[in-house]
Amino acid sequence: MLTSGGDAPGMNAAVRAVVRMGIKSGFHVIGIERGYAGLLENEMRDMHLRSVSDILQRGGTVLYSARCPEFKEEWNIARAKEICEGAGIEALVTIGGDGTFRGALELTRRGLPCIGVPGTIDNDIAASQYTVGFDTAINTVVQMVDRVRDTSQSHDRCSVIEVMGRHSGHIALYAGIACGALAILVPEIPFNLERDVITKMVATLRTGKQHFIVMLAEGVGSAVDIAEKIESLTGIETQPVVLGHVQRGGSPTALERVVASAMGHHAVELIAEGKSGRVVVQRDGRVTDLPIEEALSMSKTIDMDLYRIAGDISI
Amino acid sequence: MLTSGGDAPGMNAAVRAVVRMGIKSGFHVIGIERGYAGLLENEMRDMHLRSVSDILQRGGTVLYSARCPEFKEEWNIARAKEICEGAGIEALVTIGGDGTFRGALELTRRGLPCIGVPGTIDNDIAASQYTVGFDTAINTVVQMVDRVRDTSQSHDRCSVIEVMGRHSGHIALYAGIACGALAILVPEIPFNLERDVITKMVATLRTGKQHFIVMLAEGVGSAVDIAEKIESLTGIETQPVVLGHVQRGGSPTALERVVASAMGHHAVELIAEGKSGRVVVQRDGRVTDLPIEEALSMSKTIDMDLYRIAGDISI
Amino acid sequence: MLTSGGDAPGMNAAVRAVVRMGIKSGFHVIGIERGYAGLLENEMRDMHLRSVSDILQRGGTVLYSARCPEFKEEWNIARAKEICEGAGIEALVTIGGDGTFRGALELTRRGLPCIGVPGTIDNDIAASQYTVGFDTAINTVVQMVDRVRDTSQSHDRCSVIEVMGRHSGHIALYAGIACGALAILVPEIPFNLERDVITKMVATLRTGKQHFIVMLAEGVGSAVDIAEKIESLTGIETQPVVLGHVQRGGSPTALERVVASAMGHHAVELIAEGKSGRVVVQRDGRVTDLPIEEALSMSKTIDMDLYRIAGDISI
Amino acid sequence: MLTSGGDAPGMNAAVRAVVRMGIKSGFHVIGIERGYAGLLENEMRDMHLRSVSDILQRGGTVLYSARCPEFKEEWNIARAKEICEGAGIEALVTIGGDGTFRGALELTRRGLPCIGVPGTIDNDIAASQYTVGFDTAINTVVQMVDRVRDTSQSHDRCSVIEVMGRHSGHIALYAGIACGALAILVPEIPFNLERDVITKMVATLRTGKQHFIVMLAEGVGSAVDIAEKIESLTGIETQPVVLGHVQRGGSPTALERVVASAMGHHAVELIAEGKSGRVVVQRDGRVTDLPIEEALSMSKTIDMDLYRIAGDISI
Repeated sequence: MLTSGGDAPGMNAAVRAVVRMGIKSGFHVIGIERGYAGLLENEMRDMHLRSVSDILQRGGTVLYSARCPEFKEEWNIARAKEICEGAGIEALVTIGGDGTFRGALELTRRGLPCIGVPGTIDNDIAASQYTVGFDTAINTVVQMVDRVRDTSQSHDRCSVIEVMGRHSGHIALYAGIACGALAILVPEIPFNLERDVITKMVATLRTGKQHFIVMLAEGVGSAVDIAEKIESLTGIETQPVVLGHVQRGGSPTALERVVASAMGHHAVELIAEGKSGRVVVQRDGRVTDLPIEEALSMSKTIDMDLYRIAGDISI
Repeated sequence: MLTSGGDAPGMNAAVRAVVRMGIKSGFHVIGIERGYAGLLENEMRDMHLRSVSDILQRGGTVLYSARCPEFKEEWNIARAKEICEGAGIEALVTIGGDGTFRGALELTRRGLPCIGVPGTIDNDIAASQYTVGFDTAINTVVQMVDRVRDTSQSHDRCSVIEVMGRHSGHIALYAGIACGALAILVPEIPFNLERDVITKMVATLRTGKQHFIVMLAEGVGSAVDIAEKIESLTGIETQPVVLGHVQRGGSPTALERVVASAMGHHAVELIAEGKSGRVVVQRDGRVTDLPIEEALSMSKTIDMDLYRIAGDISI
Repeated sequence: MLTSGGDAPGMNAAVRAVVRMGIKSGFHVIGIERGYAGLLENEMRDMHLRSVSDILQRGGTVLYSARCPEFKEEWNIARAKEICEGAGIEALVTIGGDGTFRGALELTRRGLPCIGVPGTIDNDIAASQYTVGFDTAINTVVQMVDRVRDTSQSHDRCSVIEVMGRHSGHIALYAGIACGALAILVPEIPFNLERDVITKMVATLRTGKQHFIVMLAEGVGSAVDIAEKIESLTGIETQPVVLGHVQRGGSPTALERVVASAMGHHAVELIAEGKSGRVVVQRDGRVTDLPIEEALSMSKTIDMDLYRIAGDISI
Repeated sequence: MLTSGGDAPGMNAAVRAVVRMGIKSGFHVIGIERGYAGLLENEMRDMHLRSVSDILQRGGTVLYSARCPEFKEEWNIARAKEICEGAGIEALVTIGGDGTFRGALELTRRGLPCIGVPGTIDNDIAASQYTVGFDTAINTVVQMVDRVRDTSQSHDRCSVIEVMGRHSGHIALYAGIACGALAILVPEIPFNLERDVITKMVATLRTGKQHFIVMLAEGVGSAVDIAEKIESLTGIETQPVVLGHVQRGGSPTALERVVASAMGHHAVELIAEGKSGRVVVQRDGRVTDLPIEEALSMSKTIDMDLYRIAGDISI
């Protein structure tokens, strides 16, 4: 088992479930440190029932994580396969995002059965409604914006909040609704500042509202620039807030721990059934699985119903 | 609109969505205070866009809530119908649990179209996978148990945590998995203390674990009694912790606010479409609706998959 | 070094400071597990710079704690002295409450120089304005009561909150002011329910207030009994909330970590200066020290200024 | 009463104490909105016992705040004096920082007795060991850095955290100790990156530590620049985190609420005693007061004992 790519809260819950269910199913479980990078360096340790005690509530990943761009190269994949063989590894659970799954697919094709578990705070894996880390990330954003709201209110101000999401607006959309943002700007939907933000602010000002939150995903532009434009167009004092890496950490939420546990458990069940090349996903509110190829070929779109709801009630 | 029964975090998000979407849909929105009890006393106030500003992040309900056992009586229902007519109320959104929905069904039958929204921390509404308040409640439990765990660990102790749930073990099950409870005792599944707790503790002790969490729903018995039994049977210092009313409050989680907003929004859509006698529910991960009768006739069971997973990984 | 008695958040910060400052001062640092009980069983481990990495933010104590009533006996103290001699221990830092300091005094008298650091959530050490654990405990209480307040408000209710403090009302007093409690009942000051609670509630009801918080230290009586009396005397629905062991845990607050670090650091400075039989304390807002005998002979009283302020502004 | 300058958590607790104690002392209490700016615009409202219900736990200030540079001008001060006279205001409590106190001093000199209460998250008021807002601000920083630490640890990274403090390093120093920062850079003490950060990192790396936190006050420079330098000099992946306006908000901590209440209470006592031109301060751990002139003439320095302790234990 390994965790790869950006770390996400809840990864430890998944790791714990894989170890415990693995041992219960009769497997010997090995933890590979620092993702594919550590695999190439043979950084492994045996995992026992007690190796994963008291990690359920911790953010980050006890297996460490790293990005490993060189894992795209043919000969590195071949070498990884050999290292696994040498270590007696018969199946691999990989926790991470699409890049992680592409590595898992390559290894599966070379004969090492892999199962992927979606772990990324961005929730940008098309095949799954939910990825490990997302629920904690949006709660972190909401808690921080609730703090900003106090001061924004005391000064009749507009705050422009920039959250993570280079190519996807899931965090911005969910957190935006949860924070009562007047406008939510996401990479999936083109926007016009004048029409989508300014006009709405002016209309809302007339109903008596005097402080505003605008939420944007980093992929859309810079909070600093947009705050300047809003201030110059409306005359309302406007401050940019870039939330940054704080969003990656924190003790996982209840749901995060439950779903991550169920996903890790399911990954081991798949291995025990002899399946390979599959991704564990949440679909229709249930934990299930799909072929990795199919999962990678899907494209995730923003939830347009939620986007419409946001527009209807943030006034 | 009214909120009835026990209050739950997220009710304010639903109230806000009903008011905002109601006004947007061309309705005049009236808030009835203290549920059916307040309806019988004609406690109403007009709701405007700004009446629901800055309530999204607050626990409880700005419309207040109360239980109203006398609403089961025929003549009270008739009187409520009259009061609504007198106030020009043409449709009613009721936020609460099964009791609330039974009232809504009676009013619908007498000609006042009602829509129910599931709001109760217990998640014990069979028709919906999710009820407003549940996500915040399990996070509150998890945060408190994480605190207990610190001290439990420092003293090599067993802690027996009693959570809400007279007839349902949903909070205990989710929070139990999220807290890594060794055993989870719920009213839906008969248990044998010796077999389900003691034997497991003894086996786990041998693997090196020295502090334990046992989670039980209040419907199963008293934490005090069970802690005493565990201590006398194992010799391990065991302390009961009854979490109590703290579980009802708190600023709603991100998901709570999003789902409650979507449910309140959907309730108004149903009214705008001329529908009545329906409950908004979450099924297969989506917000949709069902006839109240059908919803009330279903019986909710505990999620047996999760229960099994808990048993597999809490060792 | 050892931690003894009830564990308290911030003990780890003190442990870390003792280890780091100890090593910097040229000492070899040994951690004794489970307090005096562990000392009698020779449960020791060497502490290095990295033994205390990433513990600053954790509740509880990595050295474990235990009560050890048998340490009052002469021959156990003598044996402890011998064990320390055998292990080459030349000085001992003990973190805990008055009982812990009495043990330290006995060992000092027998020739093992000891320094005490006040660690107990109750803040009931007369010599020090502040004890490690108190700030986190009152914040935990406040966060929980803020949750109770949500639901208390939604139902026009009175909540009676029972907090820790068998012989001292410091937690009740500070948390009571911080939560806006109508009445604060502490063991140090006799009270009359009719005069101090009921009359005040009735007067406040007339000003428009409809929900109330009454805070009591466990030493004063049972929240269940007092809630019943209030309900029967006023007719206002009243609920008892017993906060329990949750108060002992949790990640320490910022101040807790800073003061505990300063106290642990000062303890090592005293040892390096060849002092013994002293307790580190906070007086006049500064970390300093006193002879253990003097510290044990003082009797702590409740802060009467704060008590009077509470009465003036909770109306 | 007015709140002026940057808002700070706990201001509401002070406002509540002034209102409640003011009414108890027989005064009629008026709240001036938006600080001196609102005073010049005659924005006032009567305050009653219930005007300040349920604000104790809220961040920000219900009286709103604003900066008012034009209040330095002679004729504005004269006008403010006249407006107060016209409104029958006989004494003024002003909550804020040094700028706020300078205004209060001018008004006092013109015959309107003023009392200042120190409210600013920066803790940069020389006369007082503690200012309303500081305890909450450092706890906010600590909670956010605890999150960053999770991800920093999972990736063997260095995080450079920039906190508020243009001219003062109090937040950086306290939060730096509480977060176990390897280095703390403050405006009061010149630093040399090579000597104070790089050399220390390299030495600590050798002891086995692999992730680092460097804390800096904004007055010292930009986290982005310093992160780049550290990464280029050490080769360790280094990320800047700018915490921004989140630090200003949030529900006040327990201590914040208690001290702010005591300070507001004391301000009214001073007025009742006929005193004027004084600032409420905390000295030697006690709430007391000083002449405004004396308070403004003091210069606050960083706590060098704490700074030294930080250096000793962060290794």
